[in-house]
Amino acid sequence: MIEENQINETRIEGRNAVLEAFRAGKTVDKLFVLDGCQDGPVRTIVREAKKGDTILNFVSKERLDQLSETGKHQGVIAFTAAYDYVEVDDILELARKKGEDPFIVVLDGIEDPHNLGAIIRTANLAGAHGVIIPKHRAVGLTATVAKTSAGALNYTPVAKVTNIVQTMKSLKDKGLWFACADMDGEIMYNLNLKGPIGLVIGSEGDGVSRLVRENCDYVASIPMKGQIESLNASVAMGILAYEIVRQRG
Amino acid sequence: MIEENQINETRIEGRNAVLEAFRAGKTVDKLFVLDGCQDGPVRTIVREAKKGDTILNFVSKERLDQLSETGKHQGVIAFTAAYDYVEVDDILELARKKGEDPFIVVLDGIEDPHNLGAIIRTANLAGAHGVIIPKHRAVGLTATVAKTSAGALNYTPVAKVTNIVQTMKSLKDKGLWFACADMDGEIMYNLNLKGPIGLVIGSEGDGVSRLVRENCDYVASIPMKGQIESLNASVAMGILAYEIVRQRG
Repeated sequence: MIEENQINETRIEGRNAVLEAFRAGKTVDKLFVLDGCQDGPVRTIVREAKKGDTILNFVSKERLDQLSETGKHQGVIAFTAAYDYVEVDDILELARKKGEDPFIVVLDGIEDPHNLGAIIRTANLAGAHGVIIPKHRAVGLTATVAKTSAGALNYTPVAKVTNIVQTMKSLKDKGLWFACADMDGEIMYNLNLKGPIGLVIGSEGDGVSRLVRENCDYVASIPMKGQIESLNASVAMGILAYEIVRQRG
Repeated sequence: MIEENQINETRIEGRNAVLEAFRAGKTVDKLFVLDGCQDGPVRTIVREAKKGDTILNFVSKERLDQLSETGKHQGVIAFTAAYDYVEVDDILELARKKGEDPFIVVLDGIEDPHNLGAIIRTANLAGAHGVIIPKHRAVGLTATVAKTSAGALNYTPVAKVTNIVQTMKSLKDKGLWFACADMDGEIMYNLNLKGPIGLVIGSEGDGVSRLVRENCDYVASIPMKGQIESLNASVAMGILAYEIVRQRG
């Protein structure tokens, strides 16, 4: 899924183009560099990548050829975000400006760009102030995500963080409560979901990771009356986000 | 979208194979026949198609060649449902057996197989007794739908009807109330959604059609606090279905 995503218009190939992207301050999500390549320009690019949140991959020539669209990658291919990320503080600032208790959606490893897009779309309409996604093992703001968000990416800010648990801890210090969606929690109707809140949604396959769950104040469960295992991640997020809307209203 | 769907393992090509599918009682959703072809076997196939709910398309040889995977269509290509449909009465019977007020999801033209699959998945977990889809201008039970439903198609029955409005009228005579999801209705929290209910969801592009909306007892609106137009159809369905669950609980 993450793989498929990389095949969109945000791919940049070749030394000059990639270096220019870094210098222009573009958010480079992932960088693929020819393994063992030590010449000047490539080392400069790697240095730039290490300054920011870019995920660095040293790969074989075959892998680069496979990823390349132009056939002229010169040992470097970068994937940039279709939209720019914000800082977590910008999300809090947005809530403050609106005079509302912060309502933040935290995604613990969503991999499907259609799910991420639908979640940003729902976050916008549920009045959430922003979405936080992890840097690793998750899809970023690709063109597919932007399209599926139906324009919501223009209004609802997204922050990308290195460590979800650390971010949650720092937000707790600022007064937020966290509720994660998971089985065997308390039925959501019985929880108090008012006040400054972070709604945590796990990945499609594995749900919320152990450490993240342990750092949540509540485990919120959607009542399950059927035979199958679980809801689609973006549908589950929508149901929980609107339970928060109902309780706040 | 409907187009993309036809490219799955439920395609049957060639005169014998297609005729056999009809004779075995398979549900043929769509049949493509070479326009102007009048020979015996093809006329028999068309006659069989007219007995059931199959949508008949007379098309050019170029179109058939394009749809063909084997290159040996002999003037006929059929698309069959990956799962069998039930009758509307079977859905009511399921509610009766469970001793519950009927809760039926009515889809007025969902075209995206991923949305249909996610809706059937949510219908199962929200405890709905079945889903009703229209014969025309909508996606059927293809392999993609089955996959996206995450197994729910094995438990939650789906009926396909020729005329949604007629079906709604007949269900109203049996005591059901209908609520459709649309803008400028009553906020869902203020409606009484208990009792025997049909939840109507419109198509991705156009929403609920005029006649269907006129035949609903309620227009239920999800509160919209953001800047964009609308929620994804399967997310909106999930939010409304769980408002029904909350009120019933």
